[in-house]
Amino acid sequence: MERLEQQMRFVTEIGELKGVLRQTMLAGLSRRENSAEHSWHLALMALTLTEHAPPGADIGRVIAMVLIHDLVEIDAGDLFLYVDPEQQSRQDAAERAAADRIFALLPADQASDVRRLWDEFSERRTPDAKFARALDRLQPMLENMAAGGGTWQEHGITADQVLPKVELIEDGSPALGRLARGLICRAVAAGFLAPALGAAGQPGEYAV
Amino acid sequence: MERLEQQMRFVTEIGELKGVLRQTMLAGLSRRENSAEHSWHLALMALTLTEHAPPGADIGRVIAMVLIHDLVEIDAGDLFLYVDPEQQSRQDAAERAAADRIFALLPADQASDVRRLWDEFSERRTPDAKFARALDRLQPMLENMAAGGGTWQEHGITADQVLPKVELIEDGSPALGRLARGLICRAVAAGFLAPALGAAGQPGEYAV
Repeated sequence: MERLEQQMRFVTEIGELKGVLRQTMLAGLSRRENSAEHSWHLALMALTLTEHAPPGADIGRVIAMVLIHDLVEIDAGDLFLYVDPEQQSRQDAAERAAADRIFALLPADQASDVRRLWDEFSERRTPDAKFARALDRLQPMLENMAAGGGTWQEHGITADQVLPKVELIEDGSPALGRLARGLICRAVAAGFLAPALGAAGQPGEYAV
Repeated sequence: MERLEQQMRFVTEIGELKGVLRQTMLAGLSRRENSAEHSWHLALMALTLTEHAPPGADIGRVIAMVLIHDLVEIDAGDLFLYVDPEQQSRQDAAERAAADRIFALLPADQASDVRRLWDEFSERRTPDAKFARALDRLQPMLENMAAGGGTWQEHGITADQVLPKVELIEDGSPALGRLARGLICRAVAAGFLAPALGAAGQPGEYAV
C-alpha cells in the first residue's frame, strides 16, 4: 500500500475518538466530554502554559504526545481515574493491544515514532511526559470546577482522594501543582468536593 | 493579574469551542462535529501528513495554527463554506472582533503571538498557512465521504462547486490536492455528490 494511502487510513480511523466519551461533564453543554476534544484542550494548554514546563521540555513533543495519548481508547474505551488496581491492569493490557493495532495503520517508520511517544507518555519519566501527564491530570479538575463539582460529586469523590493525585501534577510542574491544590481548597470551600468520607469539612486543611 | 491567572482564564474560556457546532455530520455518531474536535483532527493530520507539506514548512507552527484557528468561533460561530460574499464579509468582521476579545485574555506577549499566528492562517501566504488551510479544507471532505455525502447532499452541493475549492488544497500540497480530486471523482461515482446542477452525471469528467 502506498504511504499516503496508509496515512489516510490512519487519519480516517482516528476520527473514531470523537465518539469515545469520558466521565467528565462539560458545564453548560449537559453532556460528557469526548476524548478528541479533551486532547485538543490539552494541546492548547501545553501551548499556553509552556513557561511552566520543566527545564528541558520540548513543547512540540509535549503537544504531539497529548494529541495521540488517548487514541488507544478507540478500542479500549476511557477509564475513570478512581478505579481499583485490577481494573487498571486490565485497562493497561487493552490499551497496549489497541496501540499495536491502531499505530500499525501508519507506515512502519511513523508507527514506531508514535508508539515511542505513547510509551514515553505512559512511563512518565522524561520532562516532556511529566508535563503532558500533569496537564492530563489538571484539565478534568478545571472542568469539575466549572461544572460545580462534576464527576467528584457524581461519584462521591472526596478531597483526600483527589489530593494524592495532585502529586503527579506537581512532579510535572510545581506551579501547576500549587494551582491544583488551590483549586481543591476552593472546591471544598464551595461545597463542590467533600473534604473526606465522614469528615466534618475543614477547608483550611487544604490551603496551599 | 498574575500571568498564570491570565493563562488559566484563557484555558477555561477556550473550552467553549466544544459547544460550537459545524455543518459537518460525523458518520456513525449521528451528530454534527464541533470545532474543538475538528481542530484536534487537523492537528493530527498535520503530524501524520508532514511529508506532504510545502518545502520550508514548520510543522510545529502548522499544528499551533490549526489548534487556535477556530477559537474566534466561540463568539462568531461557524460559517458553512458555500455562502455568498456578503455573509462571508460579515463573518470576517465578527471573527476579527472575536480575536480582539479572546486573545486579549492572555498575557500581552502571548496574545500578540497567537494573533500573529491567526492572522497568518487567515492570509494564507506562508508555507505554514498554506498547508494548515489545505488540511482545514480537506478534512470535511473526508467526513462527507465517510458519511455517504454528508453536507454535500444536505445542501445540494455539486462537484462543480467543490472542484474550485480544491485549488486551495493543491496550493498547500500538490499530493493532497490530487487526493482530493480523486475523492471528488469517487464521490460522484458513488452518488454522494451530484456532478453539476441539472447535469446528467459524467463521473469521468472528474477523474484526476
